[in-house]
Amino acid sequence: MLPPSFQNLIDEISKLPGLGPRAAARLVSHLLRQSKEELNKLISALQNLKQETKICRRCFNLSENELCPICQDPKRDNSQICVVEDALDIPPIEQTKRFQGVYHVLEGTLSPLEGREPSKLRIKELTNRIKKSQPKVKEIIIATNPSTEGETTALYLVRLLRPLNIKITRLGRGLSTGSSLEYADENTLINALEGRREYK
Amino acid sequence: MLPPSFQNLIDEISKLPGLGPRAAARLVSHLLRQSKEELNKLISALQNLKQETKICRRCFNLSENELCPICQDPKRDNSQICVVEDALDIPPIEQTKRFQGVYHVLEGTLSPLEGREPSKLRIKELTNRIKKSQPKVKEIIIATNPSTEGETTALYLVRLLRPLNIKITRLGRGLSTGSSLEYADENTLINALEGRREYK
Repeated sequence: MLPPSFQNLIDEISKLPGLGPRAAARLVSHLLRQSKEELNKLISALQNLKQETKICRRCFNLSENELCPICQDPKRDNSQICVVEDALDIPPIEQTKRFQGVYHVLEGTLSPLEGREPSKLRIKELTNRIKKSQPKVKEIIIATNPSTEGETTALYLVRLLRPLNIKITRLGRGLSTGSSLEYADENTLINALEGRREYK
Repeated sequence: MLPPSFQNLIDEISKLPGLGPRAAARLVSHLLRQSKEELNKLISALQNLKQETKICRRCFNLSENELCPICQDPKRDNSQICVVEDALDIPPIEQTKRFQGVYHVLEGTLSPLEGREPSKLRIKELTNRIKKSQPKVKEIIIATNPSTEGETTALYLVRLLRPLNIKITRLGRGLSTGSSLEYADENTLINALEGRREYK
């Protein structure tokens, strides 16, 4: 029914995460009616992506060089590694200016149901890195998301890393700033209660 | 913070309808970790889109030629024009096999708030087409969506076309198949009551 080149682009876009066939069709319809110049801007941005953006060979953060700016920075504390699911989780942590260690990007979460096994994540690279690290790693901060998959991944890492006798921590849990008690879910409240701090 | 080529692709993708900066960032992160071959398939599908998919010069449907397959078909009734918002609205109507007329794609809806005026749609082309048509057009079926913007566009068209003394209809309204009375909204029920039919 639809012209082949139109259908073909719908098929390609439908493969991307979060885009079903209907959203893809609407997107392609929009692209078709854009000017040639607009479309070419998108195409060349895609072409440049892999040429200019690299993955840091040590921590798997986004980078323009072999090592990302954080791994290259001599002021960062290599004895503290913050483990995140995705490279996009790094900028918000950096913006707090409260973490001076380095990162390790897992490139995803474990999900037995969707066939994402430990071998698909950068877990072997993490353990190798810990074993070889100079100075010795003193703390692993697990900063996966507070979702089922994030928690599963965190638990797996804790079990895997415990024999190495390093301090393993996770980010605090509780009420997020600007949220309201009234609408907080049960789990958040349990975490907030368990993680309560004394005024000093 | 992010590498420029990464940020640039996020910016380009954020311009597309339905994709905010966060969804765009996640998409770019996914694309970056795809193989060169996978990414090239997407790029060439984009490059082929405009080369191989055209817009029918009479009805603005998608087409591989100057005229779309429907406008080319001598069995279609040119005296009946079904006006749709988007070319993607045509396949579902065609699948019913109950419409033997031709189409006219508006390429959008009117929206004074978002600056989409009549001149941005294919409305002038519609009135010209009606005036020049041989055989004479007998019926215009307005098949815009039952949304605020779709209704606004429909009302505008009715007012514009009424002086031409052609029958103007719209698609029936009421309960959709498989829906339940319990969850139907008030407007749907009002339409269902007003559009009730007698058993014969």
